Amino acid sequence: MFIKETVKGMRDILPAEMEIREYLLTKLKYIYTSFGFTQIETPCMERIENLTSNQGGENEKLIFKVLKRGEKLNESLNLDNPDELCDSGMRYDLTVPLSRYFANNAGQLPMPFKALQVGSVWRADRPQKGRYRQFTQCDIDILGNPDNTAESELIYVTSLFLDSVGVKGNTVMVNDRRILKGMAKKAGFAEEDYNKVFIILDKYDKIGEDGVKKELLESGCDETAVNTYMDIFHGFMTAEDRFSYVEEAFGDAMEPGVADNIRQIFANVALMSGGKFHLSFDPTLVRGMGYYTGTIFEIKSEDFKGSSIAGGGRYDNMIGNFTGTPTCACGFSIGFERLVGALLDKKFKADGTREKVAVLYGKAFTSGDVATLQCKCNALRENGKVVLVQKMNKNVGFQKQKLEAEGYGTFIDVRYPDEIETKL
Amino acid sequence: MFIKETVKGMRDILPAEMEIREYLLTKLKYIYTSFGFTQIETPCMERIENLTSNQGGENEKLIFKVLKRGEKLNESLNLDNPDELCDSGMRYDLTVPLSRYFANNAGQLPMPFKALQVGSVWRADRPQKGRYRQFTQCDIDILGNPDNTAESELIYVTSLFLDSVGVKGNTVMVNDRRILKGMAKKAGFAEEDYNKVFIILDKYDKIGEDGVKKELLESGCDETAVNTYMDIFHGFMTAEDRFSYVEEAFGDAMEPGVADNIRQIFANVALMSGGKFHLSFDPTLVRGMGYYTGTIFEIKSEDFKGSSIAGGGRYDNMIGNFTGTPTCACGFSIGFERLVGALLDKKFKADGTREKVAVLYGKAFTSGDVATLQCKCNALRENGKVVLVQKMNKNVGFQKQKLEAEGYGTFIDVRYPDEIETKL
Repeated sequence: MFIKETVKGMRDILPAEMEIREYLLTKLKYIYTSFGFTQIETPCMERIENLTSNQGGENEKLIFKVLKRGEKLNESLNLDNPDELCDSGMRYDLTVPLSRYFANNAGQLPMPFKALQVGSVWRADRPQKGRYRQFTQCDIDILGNPDNTAESELIYVTSLFLDSVGVKGNTVMVNDRRILKGMAKKAGFAEEDYNKVFIILDKYDKIGEDGVKKELLESGCDETAVNTYMDIFHGFMTAEDRFSYVEEAFGDAMEPGVADNIRQIFANVALMSGGKFHLSFDPTLVRGMGYYTGTIFEIKSEDFKGSSIAGGGRYDNMIGNFTGTPTCACGFSIGFERLVGALLDKKFKADGTREKVAVLYGKAFTSGDVATLQCKCNALRENGKVVLVQKMNKNVGFQKQKLEAEGYGTFIDVRYPDEIETKL
Repeated sequence: MFIKETVKGMRDILPAEMEIREYLLTKLKYIYTSFGFTQIETPCMERIENLTSNQGGENEKLIFKVLKRGEKLNESLNLDNPDELCDSGMRYDLTVPLSRYFANNAGQLPMPFKALQVGSVWRADRPQKGRYRQFTQCDIDILGNPDNTAESELIYVTSLFLDSVGVKGNTVMVNDRRILKGMAKKAGFAEEDYNKVFIILDKYDKIGEDGVKKELLESGCDETAVNTYMDIFHGFMTAEDRFSYVEEAFGDAMEPGVADNIRQIFANVALMSGGKFHLSFDPTLVRGMGYYTGTIFEIKSEDFKGSSIAGGGRYDNMIGNFTGTPTCACGFSIGFERLVGALLDKKFKADGTREKVAVLYGKAFTSGDVATLQCKCNALRENGKVVLVQKMNKNVGFQKQKLEAEGYGTFIDVRYPDEIETKL
């Protein structure tokens, strides 16, 4: 039985979208490799043990598991434990594979290791509009560089990439996990309340300062701590120099140099971009706190109604926990599918796509005449154009309409072979 | 438990190989899209029904099957039939997905549909050197063009691609399934013996004319038929004009125009390439006869010791059988992993990779100095170079050796910040 639909929640990608994807990927790869990032690729399947090592949080519930084969499957069939039926699964992110890749190949890799990984990931999530069970992730990581030249380069190059594909109105929000903790500590919250506090703080964009205060109180936090926290927070939001403010207001609740670290990143990116890229030191930036240990950042864009199009941070412990060898790391993840979606909706414009020419030949053409025509078109192709040679249909108007929809902007009609010389 | 190895039979791709893969893919995509081929992408998973529809031959035994999830898994657990445990599987080729894609999206696709599909496929084969359970396939197909302008274009563009990436000494072997049958019919073989005859004929390269004759007799074929066959075959191999020979010797055993069809393809490709590409009309070319209905072709290369690096043909019935709508088709498949392997072994040389410059800075550099340095390097990057900015190690000799192995050919040492202006 033949079924023409895709597997549930997955999708075919049509030519028009493929052009946009390829355009973005070409730019992305070109720009990051210009800075010495190297592409890597890992298999789409990982050992089930690695996928279920508690590294992946909720995603571990969404794994597509791969059935054992042959004798090993037979041995597992009657164990009545579905976990025994599979030995591997589809990766749900690129971070577990990156860690495993680094552990497996470190001896052959440059150090620091600047990796660009683009690939499909799979999650057996409930399918929704714009959310599929197979989608592309795009991660850029620097492993083994402990200082903020890593953050500076990552923020600069990622901004450069977004700029190059036409995403406008970007602001890089920057914070530090240690600042979040320092501010909470200074206010006097109990350490076990930190995460709750951060989750509420994260809603600042939607509920404002008063809303944050209200929710903190409602959540059962100590009132004195909440009041102190709001004072510090208000000071932060309104300070003329947020770097100095952090030091003055709660520098004693953190290790030294945390604010200065961000100050340097700001100066570096300003220097590298000639002041072009806009950064904002944002105490409300939380991100999933999971594995970040230092700087965290997120790029918000007016082209995406102020929402985030890329995010990342420093995670100095995660790879070591996973592989057994301490390895500092800092990375960015770009919302590739969101970028594609926006380009498809023409929210911003992809330039740089090649001019497309359709050459239509009449029914009098022999296959040898078509070869002559193809030959003539090669000069245009060598100039970077796309040239499609196609037989003219009876309804040539409709044919051209369809070709226009595929992006063909120039049409050359060659009804008879003797017109080849003059028309091309 | 963390396991650093990949899933059995799969592999991590290191940066050096990734560069070669990207180089090949960039060329491939650029050249085919120049001719109006459009890229498509299908999900890596297909419904298990489509993968087990007898389309995939032996590959159907090698499917990685994906376990059902949730309630549906529970319902299937005690049925004692492993087939009930899975609802989808990993694709083992790109042909089943192409057929399904076409059936699913035909209304939105151009016609003729010229598709380029590059993607991973999975086969649970016994792992061997150079043969992995996940690998890349690369298929180029024209659907809906019934005449030999399709064959001519496919052969021309594929030769152009191989030429552009430096594969030298290529010959396009061409034959037609109808010629194979016609020759066998004329000789008087029983129709049920055809496949046996073709399999023996396919060994001509290794066993020669006498060997073919010997094996045909040993296989139990009729002696008169074998003798007639060898006469026709010998005439074919030694004919001055193979096209005319086919018509004269067994044209009456085929539909008309088959030899002329190949003659036209030869003339067209000669015309398009200015005589650059070498074609050979080869009666021993068999290929898997499975679904081909007309022209078959294969590109053999001296760079690959005379073995095949790409192959394809016309298969006018297959998509229709699969989808229910008759659709003529002609396609090429390129041995992508073999090309990568040969480039890795430096059997032929990839040009066009970017110049790589490593700028090493001394320990006196602040992160701000590094930003200044990065800034200075942007001019080189804008000229298309790769510029890696890295801290100088104590053992700078070893560091440069490693960088050289990564392809860096130019080194700029900037020990102190005040050297930035003069060194760059």
